[in-house]
Amino acid sequence: MTDEVRRSLRADASDNRTRILAVARAAFAADGLDVSMREIARRAEVGVATVYRRFPTKEALLAEAFAEPLALCSAVVEEGLAAADPWQGFSLVIEQLMQVHAVDRGFSDRFRSAAAYLTADRDRTLRLLLQLVQRAQRAGALRADFVVEDVILALMANDGIRAESPAARAAASRRLAALMLQSFRADPVRAPLPPPVRLPLPRTGGTPATRGR
Amino acid sequence: MTDEVRRSLRADASDNRTRILAVARAAFAADGLDVSMREIARRAEVGVATVYRRFPTKEALLAEAFAEPLALCSAVVEEGLAAADPWQGFSLVIEQLMQVHAVDRGFSDRFRSAAAYLTADRDRTLRLLLQLVQRAQRAGALRADFVVEDVILALMANDGIRAESPAARAAASRRLAALMLQSFRADPVRAPLPPPVRLPLPRTGGTPATRGR
Repeated sequence: MTDEVRRSLRADASDNRTRILAVARAAFAADGLDVSMREIARRAEVGVATVYRRFPTKEALLAEAFAEPLALCSAVVEEGLAAADPWQGFSLVIEQLMQVHAVDRGFSDRFRSAAAYLTADRDRTLRLLLQLVQRAQRAGALRADFVVEDVILALMANDGIRAESPAARAAASRRLAALMLQSFRADPVRAPLPPPVRLPLPRTGGTPATRGR
Repeated sequence: MTDEVRRSLRADASDNRTRILAVARAAFAADGLDVSMREIARRAEVGVATVYRRFPTKEALLAEAFAEPLALCSAVVEEGLAAADPWQGFSLVIEQLMQVHAVDRGFSDRFRSAAAYLTADRDRTLRLLLQLVQRAQRAGALRADFVVEDVILALMANDGIRAESPAARAAASRRLAALMLQSFRADPVRAPLPPPVRLPLPRTGGTPATRGR
């Protein structure tokens, strides 16, 4: 085998894996978890042996199909818990989760599927998140009436942002995250906000952004 | 004519008016502003004379079809401007607009149509909103780096809330509004928040709400 052929086979294998996972996610979401491995092979246009070579059991396929959003979320929360300063750790988590949700529009849906199917992983992530919240509250940095639902509220609020480009959406999300974090603090500060973004309420063409003074 | 017949005729007339407006909104939104009065009559299943009796010109129909969200928004902002205290006036506007958007899910779409079609009314509403913002900033109550786009950001954030019932959505929106307002203040305070709401991240059945301490 030449190097080129080898590279091409590796690329094929990786393409197959990605395609099978994408097809499986769509199939499970549309038709439930009973869709067979054979049916997934058919929809992915690969042989059933190829599916089994990548995912020895259906459980393995299910876990991989839905694991990514929860794994990412867990990793972010663990990073926040590892931060020396509880408030820094908490802020990092809010900022990163809001940014991921803003940049990748499919993330919220995949996250909800993951949370619905992988209940053990979801509960572990929620426990970590609760630790993060309680740690910041014990340090007196996070307001005492903050609850884990407020993280969900912030992520939902983030989901509502519409903007004319992915970059504008990310920028608007950064400003929203900064605003939310300033309201979450126990001892309020007024740190400068990330710059505002022009948002798509239809406007007359020539008007400059309508700013306060 | 008996009273009953008179009442029934009045009810019919009012039904027709409501139906024509609903059909016109849907038709203009789907097919643009060129849809004829005749076509609107056809879709509303009334005679074209009935349409002209209610709306003497197409401009009159257009204005009424889209006026309501902007008129409501203007009225709320004018009420805010009339409040003696600039911060109270500003808060009232944010709270009321977020509440209207949360309770009436179609409001945001109607508002966007109104803003797209009734540009003069929209610009007047934006000017009023800018006055409200500048008045609260001159009083030193609203942070200096607040811009009118932040009102839109708050309304978009509000749009992202999903909840299991209209009541839960309204409650979550109240909490979000209180959080946003605490971050908008120039001199931050920590007032108590409206109670948190359980939000629909899928959960294991028996787990109580996962709260911080």
